[in-house]
Amino acid sequence: MSIVTIERKVLEKNDAIAAENRALFESHHLFVINLVSSPGAGKTRLLERTLERLKDRVALGVIEGDVQTDLDARRVARYGAPVVQIVTNGACHLDAGMVRDAAAKMDLDTLDGLIIENVGNLVCPAAYDLGEATKVVLLSTTEGEDKPLKYPAMFRNASVLVITKMDLAPYLHADIEQLKRHALWINPDLQIFETSCESGDGLPAWCDWLVRKTAVAHA
Amino acid sequence: MSIVTIERKVLEKNDAIAAENRALFESHHLFVINLVSSPGAGKTRLLERTLERLKDRVALGVIEGDVQTDLDARRVARYGAPVVQIVTNGACHLDAGMVRDAAAKMDLDTLDGLIIENVGNLVCPAAYDLGEATKVVLLSTTEGEDKPLKYPAMFRNASVLVITKMDLAPYLHADIEQLKRHALWINPDLQIFETSCESGDGLPAWCDWLVRKTAVAHA
Repeated sequence: MSIVTIERKVLEKNDAIAAENRALFESHHLFVINLVSSPGAGKTRLLERTLERLKDRVALGVIEGDVQTDLDARRVARYGAPVVQIVTNGACHLDAGMVRDAAAKMDLDTLDGLIIENVGNLVCPAAYDLGEATKVVLLSTTEGEDKPLKYPAMFRNASVLVITKMDLAPYLHADIEQLKRHALWINPDLQIFETSCESGDGLPAWCDWLVRKTAVAHA
Repeated sequence: MSIVTIERKVLEKNDAIAAENRALFESHHLFVINLVSSPGAGKTRLLERTLERLKDRVALGVIEGDVQTDLDARRVARYGAPVVQIVTNGACHLDAGMVRDAAAKMDLDTLDGLIIENVGNLVCPAAYDLGEATKVVLLSTTEGEDKPLKYPAMFRNASVLVITKMDLAPYLHADIEQLKRHALWINPDLQIFETSCESGDGLPAWCDWLVRKTAVAHA
């Protein structure tokens, strides 16, 4: 049995569980985001700022995925949102089965939306559907404008690109317009938000989008 | 046949080829680095600055690993070093077989050292020995001081940590001493260089280390 066959079987099994997850989330009128990026692009930081801003408007739950440690779950828990930590113990991405087991520990009826923070990795998580409504990819200004071209699958599979750390752009040689052109070459339908969790710039637009999407899922 | 069995077989096969690579490199008295980090931590930038500084002192060759594009090989080729690009077509790490095939395209007798730039990924490349003498992990100041704890395998398997983008540290809340403490908890033997490719700080110490290592390999 070849490796390719095994991989296809793994992905087929994952996709079947993801379809069950999606049906479950839809039956609860939940808007679910799969949040992906490189390590250190600022997923947890964006999550913290989002929970802070939306705490009186949208009931958000969080599933945290990490190779090791529950540091992120502890950071997020301070904002009062229900959070379940998945520690993958070396695996480089979440899969649909892990998300199914984590979701079973949450009271989905009390939630409007669920944000799944994936393992920091711009490659492998692109292949694993978790049952989310939308993949949101983060890219920080410090990572360089070539990244959509070098890691195209992630940008092709996402609906939204959140550019983070815009406050650092003046100190870099980063060409943000070029970064956006590259992202739109790979995926012309990408919706792009330019944000800074430091200054707060761009967070209202991002949060408004999230509120609208949870409202639509709830309707 | 379980997935775990397959993965073990893949790794065993990889390790066997890596041992052949290592013997080949040693027979040519080559010092070989496996350069790993998140996407955008600055591997290619460090490589460019290193080639620039060492061009009259050490004959370095480069193997570039990317999921897609030959952008990095083109950047590196401008410095006159022999470079072979591996495009993994979606695979999230280099393996020893890819490196064997790339090395076969180089005239190893003309080289003192070989730097293999791995795919940007803090997880999967940790598991794949390429036959290198040393793994060097890069971490940029913008990625956060928790990364050694969250991606421990990579920091445990490396001998050297190069902290990059030190010039940005004043604009961040980054606690570099804490970052170093975390790295040394995971791996007390890590040698650490603090660098900025922007200001040049720390590059002489890093380059001196590289020169010494190639000299020892050559002796």
